[in-house]
Amino acid sequence: MRVLICGVDGYLGWSLAQHLAARGHEIAGIDDYSRRRWVAEMSSDSALPVASMSDRLQVFKETFGRELLFSEGDLKDYSLVERVFREFEPEAVVHLGECPSAPYSMIDVHHAVEVHNNNVGSTFNLLFALRDLAPEAHLLKLGTMGEYGTPNVAIPEGFFEIEYRDRSDKLPFPRQANSFYHWSKVSGSNHVMFASKIWGLPATDVMQGVVFGTRVDKMDDDERLLTRLDFDQCFGTAINRFSCQAVIGHPLTLFGKGGQKRGFLPLRDSMQCLTLALENPPEHDEYRVFNQFEEVYDLTQLALKVQRAAAGLGMEVEVRSVENPRTELEDHFYEPDHHNLLNLGYKPTHTVETEITFMLEDLQKYSDRIEMHRDVFMPDVRWDGGRAKSKFI
Amino acid sequence: MRVLICGVDGYLGWSLAQHLAARGHEIAGIDDYSRRRWVAEMSSDSALPVASMSDRLQVFKETFGRELLFSEGDLKDYSLVERVFREFEPEAVVHLGECPSAPYSMIDVHHAVEVHNNNVGSTFNLLFALRDLAPEAHLLKLGTMGEYGTPNVAIPEGFFEIEYRDRSDKLPFPRQANSFYHWSKVSGSNHVMFASKIWGLPATDVMQGVVFGTRVDKMDDDERLLTRLDFDQCFGTAINRFSCQAVIGHPLTLFGKGGQKRGFLPLRDSMQCLTLALENPPEHDEYRVFNQFEEVYDLTQLALKVQRAAAGLGMEVEVRSVENPRTELEDHFYEPDHHNLLNLGYKPTHTVETEITFMLEDLQKYSDRIEMHRDVFMPDVRWDGGRAKSKFI
Repeated sequence: MRVLICGVDGYLGWSLAQHLAARGHEIAGIDDYSRRRWVAEMSSDSALPVASMSDRLQVFKETFGRELLFSEGDLKDYSLVERVFREFEPEAVVHLGECPSAPYSMIDVHHAVEVHNNNVGSTFNLLFALRDLAPEAHLLKLGTMGEYGTPNVAIPEGFFEIEYRDRSDKLPFPRQANSFYHWSKVSGSNHVMFASKIWGLPATDVMQGVVFGTRVDKMDDDERLLTRLDFDQCFGTAINRFSCQAVIGHPLTLFGKGGQKRGFLPLRDSMQCLTLALENPPEHDEYRVFNQFEEVYDLTQLALKVQRAAAGLGMEVEVRSVENPRTELEDHFYEPDHHNLLNLGYKPTHTVETEITFMLEDLQKYSDRIEMHRDVFMPDVRWDGGRAKSKFI
Repeated sequence: MRVLICGVDGYLGWSLAQHLAARGHEIAGIDDYSRRRWVAEMSSDSALPVASMSDRLQVFKETFGRELLFSEGDLKDYSLVERVFREFEPEAVVHLGECPSAPYSMIDVHHAVEVHNNNVGSTFNLLFALRDLAPEAHLLKLGTMGEYGTPNVAIPEGFFEIEYRDRSDKLPFPRQANSFYHWSKVSGSNHVMFASKIWGLPATDVMQGVVFGTRVDKMDDDERLLTRLDFDQCFGTAINRFSCQAVIGHPLTLFGKGGQKRGFLPLRDSMQCLTLALENPPEHDEYRVFNQFEEVYDLTQLALKVQRAAAGLGMEVEVRSVENPRTELEDHFYEPDHHNLLNLGYKPTHTVETEITFMLEDLQKYSDRIEMHRDVFMPDVRWDGGRAKSKFI
């Protein structure tokens, strides 16, 4: 299958390119390296070394025996998107080209607007290009479980049947995002749902949980094949950040009480799920929503798992609470469904503990790179607009 | 009260400036004349003559005995918004500075992006300016009833209590907009709801029905005080367009079956409702949603009302169906609530028929201006991306 990966230089994009190429798919990619710039703006760097794109393309060809057709450019530029669609004639388009950071979108008005315009504008361009140039191609759009927020009722996959004042309907489940980034993903989901309805585009909207890990299956040992792994307050998600903290002996930092519950899945399971979605596309006209995560944990549980796994490798670390820079519930009901991918054949590959151990072993080799940036661990981007470093509590 | 009206040069903005000034409020306004440009882009013009801003400011001062503090500029420019907030110190901000056209947003990808970025970007700038410079000021944001779409259940005002799998919660009512414009308004509403929650901003989100009419109470006879009245396919809404068609003997054009139901209200009632919201602001921290319309009608009923009112003034016009350029339900359940404004004291002022008669009388004076542009009545912006003029069916 010809798969166009938007955001191919990112954490998920570079992993997915390899995972799909190993299964024989033909890959094209677009990226403008914004993720590299955003992380640099946070005065941080990936824990794993990130090869230049020319090195990545070289090792890709050596490893998989064929080229990755790469175009450098901004997904907000419609003429670029149009040109790539004409040249590559994608059968599937995976949209990973969004800015994936809640705190980054909360820095100030300019960041809020940039994240929103980037995420929504790139989605608009893909939808119109699909309509006009590849109406049968499958759009696989990455959303996030964070679109739903933390309601006091169970969370279905996208839609729910309700009774209201003696009538009934199947409606989109209400979204209650908790950052301007998450709201930009809600907009994207809404636009995909609407475009699919009026233009008949086949689309899968993946409400993904928090991804962690350094590895995908069949990723060779060549360092140039490594994907990035961020640990700063904006681009480092919970388990990844805890693991980086562990390997340099920094306390694992919980925000507030640490009772926040989220769905999590290892990077290799994310690849498995995205591949299942691609290889089992929806019907023409169909818009389907998958909640994509392996299991729900609260952040304290996860920190303790990382602590235990680290101890198993001889590293002792504390778990400590810091002032929560976010305005969020620190203890709440959380019960999201995730049947659709399991029905399609998703089989979780390892326990969280095993995956964390693999990750810690990978990261130990690069502890110097993390040590250099250890001051990025304490967050200062606050939901109230302030910019003071959180303190231990 | 010091009221900043964003989009003060538009149909509602210029009317509201006068309505509020007549009640003794102090008015500032921002506009970059985009509405004038958008209507010109549709090869059309306002049926009522629109004075230049310098003439408007002059007659405003003559009529109300005080200046309107006007700033020309783009609401997407944060430095402009910041400067106006510092100079004027608003106690209330009314956001009418959005592109209000479903078809305009459906023309092509560039228009979809422009409408979205304009509407969402301007809202972001106002929210951050309120947070940082006027946290106690009341934000009155214009949304639209079109955000809800046409679900098969009753539509509450913003939120609803539900039971779902034996648990209950109060959630935002799901939105199912039917154009990229309407989705941009959904985004705006979501951002206001979220900002109000995390920053404590007092905000009213008005889900407004379709407004019609040429008059507000106390609008003097001076032609420079007239507000605009559009009739092209993008900026002319149903009753206004029918009325313009009637005065030049053009058939009143229904889209398809004409069974589409919407909430409608006269311009003067819109002014009354917005004023009630401003003079009865929400509490600190409160985000409230008003469904703002007088009554629900289907488009056939309204066309027949315009036909009858026109006959009363000696004008005979046909009502005819044209191919529907939109993908929408042409016959459906529709039962939205609208208690909140009635509870606040909203009293509908005239019957729809009376208001239509006033409008037809006003428009008769300017029938030459409409006749010049009679070819804009047949729509060609189609939801499927085509651009063929609709034919009579």
